[in-house]
Amino acid sequence: MDRIYYITMLYDFYSELLTEKQRSVMERYYLDDLSLNEVAEEHDISRQAVHDMIKRTEHILQQYEDKLSLVAKYVDRKKRVEDIIALIDSMEPNDRLKEIRERVSSILE
Amino acid sequence: MDRIYYITMLYDFYSELLTEKQRSVMERYYLDDLSLNEVAEEHDISRQAVHDMIKRTEHILQQYEDKLSLVAKYVDRKKRVEDIIALIDSMEPNDRLKEIRERVSSILE
Repeated sequence: MDRIYYITMLYDFYSELLTEKQRSVMERYYLDDLSLNEVAEEHDISRQAVHDMIKRTEHILQQYEDKLSLVAKYVDRKKRVEDIIALIDSMEPNDRLKEIRERVSSILE
Repeated sequence: MDRIYYITMLYDFYSELLTEKQRSVMERYYLDDLSLNEVAEEHDISRQAVHDMIKRTEHILQQYEDKLSLVAKYVDRKKRVEDIIALIDSMEPNDRLKEIRERVSSILE
C-alpha cells in the first residue's frame, strides 16, 4: 500500500482520537495537499513545528493501528466482500442473487 | 442490550487501549465474575479503589465508543450479515450458494 494512502487510511479510522490542532494540520497537509510552509503560515507556527507535529501525529496513528488494527481488518473485510461479489457474478443471475449482491456490498459502508 | 454484556463488548473492542492494571481489574471483575472484595484482595488495594477504577475504566471505554463507534458498527454489520444469511436460506440450495453463505458468515470473524 502506498505510504500516503496508508496514512490517510489511518487518519480516516483514528482522526477522532486526535486533538483538533493535530486534525487540522493533518487535513491541510495530507488531504488538501498544502506544503509545510503553507500549513505553517496558516497556523502561525514554524515550518519545523508543522513537520514535527505531522511526524508525531503519524506515530500516534500508527500506535492506534498497532493496538486496534482497524485498517488491517477493513482491508481484510474489503477483500472478503470483493471475493464474494466475484463469486456471485460468476453465477446465473436472478433477482434474489442481485439482492444478496447489493446487501453484501453494503457491508463495507 | 444488557449493561454487563455491553461493557464486555466495549472491553472486547478497546481493551488494548487500557493500562495493564485497568485490564486486570476489569477482567477479574467482569469476565471472571469476582466480587469487588476479591479483586481488592488480589490487587492489594481497597474495595473503594477497585470500585473507582472500574467506574473510571467504564467511562474511558465509553469515551472511545463515542469517538469510534466500533461496538455500534459491529452490531450493525452482524445484523446485515444475519439478514443476508436468512435470505440465502430462503433460496433453493446449491453448492455455490453454500460457498457464498460460508464466506458471508466469515466476514464477522
